Amino acid sequence: QFSFRSFVSLFKEKIQKRSSDDTKKLIHSIKVGIALVLVSLLYLLNPLYKKAGENAMWAIMTVVVVFEFFAGATLSKGINRGIGTILGGSLGCMAAVFAQEVGGVGNVGNAVIVGTSVFIFGAAATHFRMVPSIKKRYDYGVMIFLLTFNLVVVSGLRATGVMELARERLSTIGMGFGVSIFTSLLIFPMWASDEFHYSTASKFENLASAIEGCLEEYFKVVSEKENQPSASFKSCKLVLHSKSKDESLANFARWEPWHGKFGFSHPWDKYQEIGEVLRELAATIISLKGCLQSPRQASSTLRQSIKEPCEAVGSSLAWTLRELGDSIMEMRRCLPKALILPKLQSTRQEIGLVISPSKLATIEGGEGLAISSFVFLLKE
Amino acid sequence: QFSFRSFVSLFKEKIQKRSSDDTKKLIHSIKVGIALVLVSLLYLLNPLYKKAGENAMWAIMTVVVVFEFFAGATLSKGINRGIGTILGGSLGCMAAVFAQEVGGVGNVGNAVIVGTSVFIFGAAATHFRMVPSIKKRYDYGVMIFLLTFNLVVVSGLRATGVMELARERLSTIGMGFGVSIFTSLLIFPMWASDEFHYSTASKFENLASAIEGCLEEYFKVVSEKENQPSASFKSCKLVLHSKSKDESLANFARWEPWHGKFGFSHPWDKYQEIGEVLRELAATIISLKGCLQSPRQASSTLRQSIKEPCEAVGSSLAWTLRELGDSIMEMRRCLPKALILPKLQSTRQEIGLVISPSKLATIEGGEGLAISSFVFLLKE
Repeated sequence: QFSFRSFVSLFKEKIQKRSSDDTKKLIHSIKVGIALVLVSLLYLLNPLYKKAGENAMWAIMTVVVVFEFFAGATLSKGINRGIGTILGGSLGCMAAVFAQEVGGVGNVGNAVIVGTSVFIFGAAATHFRMVPSIKKRYDYGVMIFLLTFNLVVVSGLRATGVMELARERLSTIGMGFGVSIFTSLLIFPMWASDEFHYSTASKFENLASAIEGCLEEYFKVVSEKENQPSASFKSCKLVLHSKSKDESLANFARWEPWHGKFGFSHPWDKYQEIGEVLRELAATIISLKGCLQSPRQASSTLRQSIKEPCEAVGSSLAWTLRELGDSIMEMRRCLPKALILPKLQSTRQEIGLVISPSKLATIEGGEGLAISSFVFLLKE
Repeated sequence: QFSFRSFVSLFKEKIQKRSSDDTKKLIHSIKVGIALVLVSLLYLLNPLYKKAGENAMWAIMTVVVVFEFFAGATLSKGINRGIGTILGGSLGCMAAVFAQEVGGVGNVGNAVIVGTSVFIFGAAATHFRMVPSIKKRYDYGVMIFLLTFNLVVVSGLRATGVMELARERLSTIGMGFGVSIFTSLLIFPMWASDEFHYSTASKFENLASAIEGCLEEYFKVVSEKENQPSASFKSCKLVLHSKSKDESLANFARWEPWHGKFGFSHPWDKYQEIGEVLRELAATIISLKGCLQSPRQASSTLRQSIKEPCEAVGSSLAWTLRELGDSIMEMRRCLPKALILPKLQSTRQEIGLVISPSKLATIEGGEGLAISSFVFLLKE
């Protein structure tokens, strides 16, 4: 009855997650539509157009580029864009004025100075962008800095009112940012922190059912085994390859303001550490695939003899994992150490009893144990 | 002598890779600088400026946004941008003309039609962007489509010569794209395919030395073990987490034209499959970490007794991996099946001999064997 229950629950969860994902995507699309219409009002309404003029273009551009799925991503991109524009604009103005003073307006000297500064800043900013820590969080900002700098310094050659131009563009970009933030944060906000929290907690559940599925498959009669798709490994692989997704979620979550149950300094680093440990556990479980697929199997009588203790170990591991996952999901303290630790220790002893007949299956127990107790210590 | 040699070679390779990475980054920065100066000539030279006018801005923007580290990435972004602009521009023109005909110029009806179309296209394109297969390859193109569509349809309300405007912008974007491609492909091109090829081949080497390091650590005297950083696991983890990097490299490599030893239809899918198998092997090796760190170790006499066969197995595995890696690196056929397969089979028998005293260490052999023979079959 093990597998059936876990399979049904997995399936149900998938469907629920699926449909809620779809509605979220739909909501996001509609939000983008609304934000675009709002920002188009700068063109559509006469009084607004008189103020903004052609520069309203920049507001539209900002909305299209900045509006992302998660609120944190929108905030981070918007702030990056804002700061990049301000820095690039002011440096560009300074360079343009410097070139005009030194080179004279419209002279060759002016053009040479501008060209040189374009080259130097372009190369420097690009090199800066490739530093890993900058790339992770400020890549977009540096790109916008470079873009604005170039536009301003180059058009300083032709237009006279560079300052004016830069100021106007900045204000329309600000408007676009405002519209984006307004729609992103106030209409059904999509929090990266919620997603991160949920996905971390559900990893525990995935691994727990993977352990169960794995044990069950091992103790199945050989003839049944062939046409069995290894569903449990798929969820394991998802956990294993979640690193880059986790990193970006943690990055966005850091930008998000206080909301719901998360404070300003929620320990997202801890989440990443937990993810790392879980990925190691997932690697262990996947390596069991080799045992399951290996042509040399222990005889079925031998397997039957170790079936019971192994299943006990497996279910206790799965229980521990689910317990930890639930405690993270609901953000309550773990059951007191006194309750979980003895259970793990007794499991360890049980493994000691069966370890002699066959290690193929129990090695999983030992390692899972070591790792899950590590997780436990992390949380405590 | 095992570890020392492998450590030195690893170190040397790191340094070489490092310094060559740095020069590559430097070259890339300089290339960006050159491209920017070239495109700024549209402003700096009077005859060019008279032709392009204010629209030269779009050329600069294109260069900043499109120029990426790898040639394939630049091409893919540029083509995405071009097609997105053309589609968005033409649809936007049609919508603007339609709105003018039906609603009348400057009327409320016109504005309503424009607003509705902005909303519908915005929501639809955003929803389209979130389809995973589109997101992977055409995300940027759809974004540019949306951006251009909005700009064109909205400015159609005010300006009369929408077509003219769109045509001019398109031609300057084309210029920017031309400059980017020119600098990216002709001056020290950085091919994603080279990088992908090299990284796939070096994964074999990494795993081989990880297996060796692992075995060696296992057979070390306990007292030495404490202050040993597990360097071999780090390279393993790099392999394990290479999935997203591999995907993007494969994506870029597909865009790159024929060059060097790679034809047009180089089997990049095969590379991804090999990467997947190697990640599984890496998972297996990492799961051995649990054995190494476990407090309950077999007695050292027992370990000494199985030392020799295990090392033989390890070195034969490492040899096989290196052989496969080399054959991929140099793109020659593997050594004939007849040469590798018997070696693997005799290894398998050796494992059979030691499997009774302790499975802790040899389980690695068995699985690595299964998987590396799988790799072998893949390549054949």
